Amino acid sequence: MTRIAILNPNTTAAFTTRLAAAARQVVSAGTDVIARSPAHGPASIECHADEAAAVPNLLAVINEEQSLGTDAYVIACFGDTGIDAAREIAAGPVIGMTEAALFAAAMLAARFSIVTLPPRTIAQAERVLRHVGLAHRCHIRAIAADVQDCVGLDEQLLRAMLMESQTAMREDRAEAIILGCAGLSDLVAPMQSALGIPVLDGVCIAVAMAEALVRNGLRTSKNLTYATPPTVPAP
Amino acid sequence: MTRIAILNPNTTAAFTTRLAAAARQVVSAGTDVIARSPAHGPASIECHADEAAAVPNLLAVINEEQSLGTDAYVIACFGDTGIDAAREIAAGPVIGMTEAALFAAAMLAARFSIVTLPPRTIAQAERVLRHVGLAHRCHIRAIAADVQDCVGLDEQLLRAMLMESQTAMREDRAEAIILGCAGLSDLVAPMQSALGIPVLDGVCIAVAMAEALVRNGLRTSKNLTYATPPTVPAP
Amino acid sequence: MTRIAILNPNTTAAFTTRLAAAARQVVSAGTDVIARSPAHGPASIECHADEAAAVPNLLAVINEEQSLGTDAYVIACFGDTGIDAAREIAAGPVIGMTEAALFAAAMLAARFSIVTLPPRTIAQAERVLRHVGLAHRCHIRAIAADVQDCVGLDEQLLRAMLMESQTAMREDRAEAIILGCAGLSDLVAPMQSALGIPVLDGVCIAVAMAEALVRNGLRTSKNLTYATPPTVPAP
Amino acid sequence: MTRIAILNPNTTAAFTTRLAAAARQVVSAGTDVIARSPAHGPASIECHADEAAAVPNLLAVINEEQSLGTDAYVIACFGDTGIDAAREIAAGPVIGMTEAALFAAAMLAARFSIVTLPPRTIAQAERVLRHVGLAHRCHIRAIAADVQDCVGLDEQLLRAMLMESQTAMREDRAEAIILGCAGLSDLVAPMQSALGIPVLDGVCIAVAMAEALVRNGLRTSKNLTYATPPTVPAP
Amino acid sequence: MTRIAILNPNTTAAFTTRLAAAARQVVSAGTDVIARSPAHGPASIECHADEAAAVPNLLAVINEEQSLGTDAYVIACFGDTGIDAAREIAAGPVIGMTEAALFAAAMLAARFSIVTLPPRTIAQAERVLRHVGLAHRCHIRAIAADVQDCVGLDEQLLRAMLMESQTAMREDRAEAIILGCAGLSDLVAPMQSALGIPVLDGVCIAVAMAEALVRNGLRTSKNLTYATPPTVPAP
Amino acid sequence: MTRIAILNPNTTAAFTTRLAAAARQVVSAGTDVIARSPAHGPASIECHADEAAAVPNLLAVINEEQSLGTDAYVIACFGDTGIDAAREIAAGPVIGMTEAALFAAAMLAARFSIVTLPPRTIAQAERVLRHVGLAHRCHIRAIAADVQDCVGLDEQLLRAMLMESQTAMREDRAEAIILGCAGLSDLVAPMQSALGIPVLDGVCIAVAMAEALVRNGLRTSKNLTYATPPTVPAP
Repeated sequence: MTRIAILNPNTTAAFTTRLAAAARQVVSAGTDVIARSPAHGPASIECHADEAAAVPNLLAVINEEQSLGTDAYVIACFGDTGIDAAREIAAGPVIGMTEAALFAAAMLAARFSIVTLPPRTIAQAERVLRHVGLAHRCHIRAIAADVQDCVGLDEQLLRAMLMESQTAMREDRAEAIILGCAGLSDLVAPMQSALGIPVLDGVCIAVAMAEALVRNGLRTSKNLTYATPPTVPAP
Repeated sequence: MTRIAILNPNTTAAFTTRLAAAARQVVSAGTDVIARSPAHGPASIECHADEAAAVPNLLAVINEEQSLGTDAYVIACFGDTGIDAAREIAAGPVIGMTEAALFAAAMLAARFSIVTLPPRTIAQAERVLRHVGLAHRCHIRAIAADVQDCVGLDEQLLRAMLMESQTAMREDRAEAIILGCAGLSDLVAPMQSALGIPVLDGVCIAVAMAEALVRNGLRTSKNLTYATPPTVPAP
Repeated sequence: MTRIAILNPNTTAAFTTRLAAAARQVVSAGTDVIARSPAHGPASIECHADEAAAVPNLLAVINEEQSLGTDAYVIACFGDTGIDAAREIAAGPVIGMTEAALFAAAMLAARFSIVTLPPRTIAQAERVLRHVGLAHRCHIRAIAADVQDCVGLDEQLLRAMLMESQTAMREDRAEAIILGCAGLSDLVAPMQSALGIPVLDGVCIAVAMAEALVRNGLRTSKNLTYATPPTVPAP
Repeated sequence: MTRIAILNPNTTAAFTTRLAAAARQVVSAGTDVIARSPAHGPASIECHADEAAAVPNLLAVINEEQSLGTDAYVIACFGDTGIDAAREIAAGPVIGMTEAALFAAAMLAARFSIVTLPPRTIAQAERVLRHVGLAHRCHIRAIAADVQDCVGLDEQLLRAMLMESQTAMREDRAEAIILGCAGLSDLVAPMQSALGIPVLDGVCIAVAMAEALVRNGLRTSKNLTYATPPTVPAP
Repeated sequence: MTRIAILNPNTTAAFTTRLAAAARQVVSAGTDVIARSPAHGPASIECHADEAAAVPNLLAVINEEQSLGTDAYVIACFGDTGIDAAREIAAGPVIGMTEAALFAAAMLAARFSIVTLPPRTIAQAERVLRHVGLAHRCHIRAIAADVQDCVGLDEQLLRAMLMESQTAMREDRAEAIILGCAGLSDLVAPMQSALGIPVLDGVCIAVAMAEALVRNGLRTSKNLTYATPPTVPAP
Repeated sequence: MTRIAILNPNTTAAFTTRLAAAARQVVSAGTDVIARSPAHGPASIECHADEAAAVPNLLAVINEEQSLGTDAYVIACFGDTGIDAAREIAAGPVIGMTEAALFAAAMLAARFSIVTLPPRTIAQAERVLRHVGLAHRCHIRAIAADVQDCVGLDEQLLRAMLMESQTAMREDRAEAIILGCAGLSDLVAPMQSALGIPVLDGVCIAVAMAEALVRNGLRTSKNLTYATPPTVPAP
């Protein structure tokens, strides 16, 4: 039995539950998906200070999972918060929802756009985009909503996402849309149907890619950058 | 039942058989993997002229597969020969072994190297590397061997690959190695054991990623670049 | 007598005839320009599948020309279809209309725009643009027309090209315009007169540059990438 | 009186003391420099997990300084650990030692190299280098030493730094050297004298640049990326 | 006593006087700032030909300053006219107003825009932007005014600068604005107050940074690119 | 009769004579090539200060040529000294020997190297390389010789150029070599014969390309960057 842990860095339980439910649809029979969030920390990740506050708790969750023999990890936060540190301490591979969505989009479309929220987090999306090198094929857009606005997944959020995606198709020549926030997988179907192009939820894609890496027996390289730290740093 | 077709653009049956056998190890119970090569064309793809000669035949194979309801395709040739045309005519997603290996490496290591062959095909590897944007994290190296030298997978090939990989670790600070030719999956285990870092076979990774995309219900965008051509071009 | 062959990868004779007539205006007395197209294949090149279907026939034409002692070749298709394979099998230099136009524009203007057609082929223009590295100085735009709409060179085409070029001047700060399709040399004069900036037809520029390379005794490097393939690949 | 706080993210007091002493040499009479480190956390920052553990404590120090009316902050850790979060919560400007050294080098030399330590932290140096965009003019090198080896500043460290710098001059055509670790300002004079080119200590340069920004009345933009977070995140 | 010389490459005395007055506000008690312009040459620098005409005279001024023991130089012309030659012949560091503003902006904001004038000089701004590598974080805009229009600093200029800056905030997501011409320091306060984001005058910032470099004992590297020329070239 | 003027920015007559003789071999019967150098200025261009001293004199030569109806200009100095200003004041197109060689190399080889001299001028070569965007395909190397060492074109120079070119073939995978100094066209034949790959002299190539542009009726764009300056700047 393969065990994949989705790590939600914020403490909003509604998100965590929803992430696991969606992800279980995209793995094979032999794979178990669980989703966890830290016991305390920010209720949502909307700035760099939220990221800083959340990461030590996220790493503590990984440390617990390590003893359970977890095979792979998915960071369920747009911007792939804490992913480098996570790769150092986890034995199994760690996949960010942002990089996974970008790589999938790059295999489905020549050009694509991210629609994220709120606007101040465009820098976090750009951090990943630069690191993976796809800036020449991807635009980043944002709608004026907070992450907390996404809990309810209401009509207003859907309308705002659709409108910005249509602008992306017209102005960026977007051939696919990446949802720039975790917990939005329920928007995939209605948006895809309204837009007629692929709409990507990074968490579900990352979970399926995690299974793909595990099946190939691949783990994070422990040479240089992601080598296990000599001592476990005290938070 | 999900059906994934591996497309070997060359006509060397030994490769084709080996590709299918290896790939079957990395998919789930509900997924069927077949490997096909064109009826005629170059015995190996070692230059751009070989690619040009092989692609129309490759597209003909896809056209046949389309009528069988194939869910996804993998291009099993380093350089992802013909992938753009394949995306236009196939309904299901098409994944190149090169891009798949690069994306997997980018999720496992900060920096990595391709070891391809023969040296003249570095341009083909670079074509993909530039397109996916990972040139700032990946070096390309080559050993002086022909693709045909890979059929036997002998000791000499393994030694040459190991030696160049060690140079990559020392000089490029490579944290992972990508095998720059299809049909080399049998080298993964011995190389990984000798080097102590991840060694990636693009075909197996691409097949597992194809399953991941299918599970997520994702297909090539038909907006703009990869729209179905108005008429099927006569070869 | 220098012999330059313009290679039109599509089979539309009207284009081929027009290309030769235009190109003869820009070479010196001692240079003979002929234009050829394959016996069969796509009537126009509007997608990657068209390119794949056309290239083997294009290479067959080069093989015939080789025996006639042709000194240089020009690929007359925006996107420089098949140019890498052509460079491998031809003895004389091979120049793409797209790269030639881009290089000329870079010597005449700090910033410039391509106006191509139809919109789905922007990816082909971008392929060349990235390869030659001028993306920081060049925008790509497209008008909603098919290549076949260009045969007649009617008023409507001219108006659409002018309107998009004016947008390029205003929004991209374009100081020159590159015509993104072969066979449009008759538009150069009216557009240049209407816009007041250089308008570049890649085919005529490529032919004149081919003569320039021949006068300098320069041919494609046969070291590594474009070395003559060991065997002529069977189509 | 201008007050500049140097933030040492690790808890090694010997470093902190040394940083303040060196920095006081480079400010004007009216400027007060203090150096602080968190009460607890990693003794040195040698990996991403160390960074993650240190940042919340670093932000707590800034919060205390805010109430003292501190005018500007310097992050004294190569890799500029936590700088984005620091910019969100601090009112005054925040300068990283890495970016400051890179900008100074870019005003003194056409090309330069970083010599950092240990080799696994090259990724952190590269993170800053990519963000500031100077990768085309700067190489990164590393010596095989730990940050803790730097406390004593012994002969062996100096020799290793000199040897790697000489290699940088020969192989990278380095015209200046950036010291890739805080607390090495005592190496500047002997290295500069031995090499004959500028040797840059980022902390002292960052402190002087902080004074320069304060004199110009400049503070972090609070529009978008670094806007003050709506709520102070709980660590 | 530290002596910093501001070099105004044009001969308009009103600018020169204003530059010195503004810069004196941003240096410490022990630093003397003088501003000089050549005896003859263009009255303003609005094109490359102006730059070419101005630089030899600018270098002559530096040669005079050298004998006065001047510690550092600031090039007070957007585009940093003649800076490479100046670095070769000056002993002390030479800082361009453009690079200084860009580096300061990069320490205060994630993304920023230059508003320069007239539109034809965008190429000069881009020359510096590419050299320092910040093109991924900075847009360049221009207003339709001549440098001579800036002498009076009238209401119309302020309005035009404000309007373009607001467009930059809306369309480029600018978090800071760089004034793209010397002599505009009086606009900083009103613009900053109207826009609510940092507005940067490169000359004042460069002068303060020059003091920062001098305090750190840093001078231009004389290895390779900026080595003192063997003979003083005759103008 | 087409008239092309080669502009040698230095005052060494031996170079000027040699440039004209070589260039006359590569133009058609109807084209007249003359070579000119300024009446005074540096004897060779080996640093930025030399460039600054030479450019005003170079522009004066262009002003004289303008009245003779010269059709096109070639800047015969590696680094394309003064080319932007020249484009502003000349009516006909202006081609730099460096950009011309780079564009020709890009049409003949996938990857190539510049071998320039002396080492301090690598920055000038890089300036052009970045501007034309070919840095991903071109390495720059230098030999330890002065420009004055090139006047005699002796055996020692040839040996040094050959040795560095062979290193370029081995280490940079160079498929063509660009001579990084004007006046070396006599080295083309012996080097090409010894190396077996194309060797490019920028001056001859630029002259032939100038003829190509003239035949196409193309001139520098006068929109924005290269618009004729409102007043002729006084040197």
